[in-house]
Amino acid sequence: MLDFTHDPQARSWVAAAQAAGCDFPLQNLPHGVFARIGRHEPPRGGVAIGDQVLDLARLAATGVLQGEPQVACEVAARETLNAYMGLGLPAWRSLRRALFRLLSDQADAATQERLKACLVPLAQAEMKLPVEVRNYTDFYTSVHHATNVGKVVRPDDPLTPNFKWLPIAYHGRASSVVASGTAYHRPRGQAMAPGAAAPVYGPCRRLDFELEMGFFVGPDTVLGQPIPLAEAADHIFGMCLLNDWSARDHQFWEMNPLGPFLGKNFCTSISPWVVTMEALAPFRVPFARPAGDPQPLAYLDDASDRAQGSLDIQLEVRLQSHKHRAQGRDGDRITATSFRHQYWTVAQMLAQHTVGGCNVCSGDLMGTGTISGPTAGEAGAIVELSVGGTRDVPLPSTGEVRRFLEDGDCVILQGWCEKPGAARIGFGECRGTILPALD
Amino acid sequence: MLDFTHDPQARSWVAAAQAAGCDFPLQNLPHGVFARIGRHEPPRGGVAIGDQVLDLARLAATGVLQGEPQVACEVAARETLNAYMGLGLPAWRSLRRALFRLLSDQADAATQERLKACLVPLAQAEMKLPVEVRNYTDFYTSVHHATNVGKVVRPDDPLTPNFKWLPIAYHGRASSVVASGTAYHRPRGQAMAPGAAAPVYGPCRRLDFELEMGFFVGPDTVLGQPIPLAEAADHIFGMCLLNDWSARDHQFWEMNPLGPFLGKNFCTSISPWVVTMEALAPFRVPFARPAGDPQPLAYLDDASDRAQGSLDIQLEVRLQSHKHRAQGRDGDRITATSFRHQYWTVAQMLAQHTVGGCNVCSGDLMGTGTISGPTAGEAGAIVELSVGGTRDVPLPSTGEVRRFLEDGDCVILQGWCEKPGAARIGFGECRGTILPALD
Repeated sequence: MLDFTHDPQARSWVAAAQAAGCDFPLQNLPHGVFARIGRHEPPRGGVAIGDQVLDLARLAATGVLQGEPQVACEVAARETLNAYMGLGLPAWRSLRRALFRLLSDQADAATQERLKACLVPLAQAEMKLPVEVRNYTDFYTSVHHATNVGKVVRPDDPLTPNFKWLPIAYHGRASSVVASGTAYHRPRGQAMAPGAAAPVYGPCRRLDFELEMGFFVGPDTVLGQPIPLAEAADHIFGMCLLNDWSARDHQFWEMNPLGPFLGKNFCTSISPWVVTMEALAPFRVPFARPAGDPQPLAYLDDASDRAQGSLDIQLEVRLQSHKHRAQGRDGDRITATSFRHQYWTVAQMLAQHTVGGCNVCSGDLMGTGTISGPTAGEAGAIVELSVGGTRDVPLPSTGEVRRFLEDGDCVILQGWCEKPGAARIGFGECRGTILPALD
Repeated sequence: MLDFTHDPQARSWVAAAQAAGCDFPLQNLPHGVFARIGRHEPPRGGVAIGDQVLDLARLAATGVLQGEPQVACEVAARETLNAYMGLGLPAWRSLRRALFRLLSDQADAATQERLKACLVPLAQAEMKLPVEVRNYTDFYTSVHHATNVGKVVRPDDPLTPNFKWLPIAYHGRASSVVASGTAYHRPRGQAMAPGAAAPVYGPCRRLDFELEMGFFVGPDTVLGQPIPLAEAADHIFGMCLLNDWSARDHQFWEMNPLGPFLGKNFCTSISPWVVTMEALAPFRVPFARPAGDPQPLAYLDDASDRAQGSLDIQLEVRLQSHKHRAQGRDGDRITATSFRHQYWTVAQMLAQHTVGGCNVCSGDLMGTGTISGPTAGEAGAIVELSVGGTRDVPLPSTGEVRRFLEDGDCVILQGWCEKPGAARIGFGECRGTILPALD
């Protein structure tokens, strides 16, 4: 539902919010959790605006807000966003509208003065994991990714028969979800080389990233009570960037018959800013199911979801090597695509997750699965870009190449929405660096 | 390590602790969380002794304990056992020894009097989920189960090549783990009939139980830091019974390529009493790897684990139908086996889980996977007992038969350890009843 908070003409008195390419204009207002760098202070909730963080704990103490937005602000100011996500859509919307008014250049001078005292420059904010991830589920909803990966195993029939009937998913590991910027050690594990008689144990040799989006669930539901598709969108608070790091050699040896385990659970990185579904509303697009594909079963079919269940989110991945950093470079873009190509919508994912009665909790994180577009250059994992490690992926600015990730590589995901007649809505970035395996 | 708390001659002044077949003698002292039935009171930690629960909150208030056991008692008295599990082995052991002395018939009369005031009859205690399950992982470590199930898919080569090289596992759903006694509705979902052109949506038609044990992890570990096998046993607090309810028709349609999801996440039941590894120590047995099987890789091989990593826990499953209940019957035993037949030890499971750097948290629950013994009558799931739903499983006392579970069926798991020269250590029971699918 579009309202005045989506007006592309609206401007903030925070000047940087109007800068070209700014991820955090007045129309975005993403939520995160931060502490000021170098201060020993408890983390608290904030909202990004331009090049600033609005400190919600400080705002809640000013008395500028009253009633429902004040209560919502107090809850959004806590050390994690779980409780705020648990408040539900009316509260989320009321705080969004209130913050929009306070940060708008239509706000009176006195209000602006009071708000300015609540701003912290983004450059001085250390961003934390925005939620305590209670449960983490990862879907598998890119038909292009599934086809690319399936070709390795089943060249003639790469898609499993269930793919177009339901959003496939598996449970991931919640404990190892980390905030953007967290480095991790290359995992050790077992791998079986083709034709070998026995597996070997050692550092991963086929380390990969996966370009994904994550979404966060709203209020807790009760065990046994599904969320119908028509209501699912209102149960989703917002989205982030997600890198589902994968040890392909370990994964492919272990995953038959019960799915990925150690190949995925050593680290999952998410971006710190949660962009609300409210902010993303202008970028909803129809879901384009190809002609001839099966009609979804009734519980996965809804007119509104068909009409606007997909999201046109631009995504790209940069790889920054040691050499890039030594040369002061930002890395090279190795892939770019859009989230709109996914075969299932986030609402369908949530409806599927709960149709058997599984309950969900505020703060649950759901990954969309690797996002690969229809062409080879739009693949969301290096195993696809390098065609299973058989072709070089070039890093033009340093002249290096990659088939899998190397120690010291930093992988940077970025995402944003842009179109004529709407303000740009950005996700910031999600980055993570690979440290050498521990002895 | 055996000490005075394992002395089979030791007796409690709680008379029922000495009764034949009692699960909770002085040598057991399992932890749980309870509230008195009909009182509106907060749940608190307790320890089972005979037919009583020792209320640890009340005990902590008496001043009978001092020092380390007092601190441990205060933590074990909380609403969940997570923090107590986080204290680690020295604290667990110190409280065990202190409670053993207080509940022993060697305790002086004044102590007995003070302790009596802290007892609540088990019959008046409503048992709660003992932990807030932070992460739930399910292993797959019965070679007999894996062979039985694999035969359906790959008759000539039922075991996947990885089975004897690593303890296979997948991440389960933490939110839907429930306490014994919780009924749940038959799940709905998608299933594809053999030879059909399209799946159908509806209530599960092949509902199953899985006889498992669960184990609980001790103190939190740090991301990137594995738990070596030689230290793994000390990181495990205790064990419970676990029923990993399974919707076979949904599971087999969805699980390729990423493993079980809705087929498992609608409900997982655990017994309320957590039997400590200390209490189970007398029942450790060598791990008997069959001749000719591969030697485990070094990180999964440890002399102490080989010598005493397995546990001889007797297990049985009863099925109680509507008809049994109408006739006042307790149900019929449909299978019985021992946990000692598992191919991997709990320490190996934990070492494998963390070898890639995945961190674990106090309160994490790990399932061992379905426990099936070497003979057909020892299978831990009805899909095995009925050979994929092709043969009747008889319920002799009512004359009924089952191929899968029916609405109204209550499945009751029981487990205990018994041998000459040791006190019987019981787990109590884990039960759950199937309600009809919701409309």
